[in-house]
Amino acid sequence: MAKFTKRVFTILLRLLALAATVSATIVMITSHETSSLLSFSFDVKYSNTPAFKYFMIVNAIVSVYSLLILFLPPKSQLWRLVVALDVIIAMLLISGISAALAIAYVGKKGNSYAGWLPICGQFHKFCNQVTGALAAGFIGAIVYLVLILNSIHAVLNPLLV
Amino acid sequence: MAKFTKRVFTILLRLLALAATVSATIVMITSHETSSLLSFSFDVKYSNTPAFKYFMIVNAIVSVYSLLILFLPPKSQLWRLVVALDVIIAMLLISGISAALAIAYVGKKGNSYAGWLPICGQFHKFCNQVTGALAAGFIGAIVYLVLILNSIHAVLNPLLV
Repeated sequence: MAKFTKRVFTILLRLLALAATVSATIVMITSHETSSLLSFSFDVKYSNTPAFKYFMIVNAIVSVYSLLILFLPPKSQLWRLVVALDVIIAMLLISGISAALAIAYVGKKGNSYAGWLPICGQFHKFCNQVTGALAAGFIGAIVYLVLILNSIHAVLNPLLV
Repeated sequence: MAKFTKRVFTILLRLLALAATVSATIVMITSHETSSLLSFSFDVKYSNTPAFKYFMIVNAIVSVYSLLILFLPPKSQLWRLVVALDVIIAMLLISGISAALAIAYVGKKGNSYAGWLPICGQFHKFCNQVTGALAAGFIGAIVYLVLILNSIHAVLNPLLV
């Protein structure tokens, strides 16, 4: 019974991770805004920034992985590999979030030493969408961290007794 | 005998991680350059950029952790915790590298859409030092990934047979 509860808990976590990373991918892909300053029209989208593109690609990969893992039969030998795969997936996700967050921070606050001006004043909607995508990605990363620590605990537990 | 070889291999890896993260910390802290353009004098240092500061702090934390772990007695019960700690440390490291790399990329190439100009033309020495720090941090992250996959393998191996 305890094993069954644990399995349901894991599946729920993986569903949450899937939802979070799919949302992050979609919100990032649809982030786009056109703003006009004087007589010029400016167009921003996520694909202009390599870090945001990387974030989107990473989230898409993690979404596919999260989906595939749901169809893995409970008795499959492949589950032994999943712990290692989870670690790699979580690292990809954290790397994507950190890179996108670093750039989003410059977009919000600018960096006066480098002469980079903030752009969120002009592109309010775009900035909000990127923030949303980052938050969704962050939830995905936290869920994967919990899954990994849970796996490590489950594997070590019989050895601890 | 195989166990002894494995232990030496792990200690060597941890020494390498220590060396890499200490180097990354020191190279990042000492990155500093003054350049004059027309009659103005510009001063760049790592602490002007939050992402570089974060990278330095993360590497300092990982250095301390890598050093402490070397003094943990081989029979200590704490070794069971080390797998989980290694995962968290590796994630911190990858997060720091990704954030710093995203900013370093803008420093090198700029982002014409956001109007952020590259600064590496003026600050050649600074850029090279940041690149060096990133490379050292990257080596540290790879070593931690190997350590984690090795631990997972070692723990799962008896279960696989």
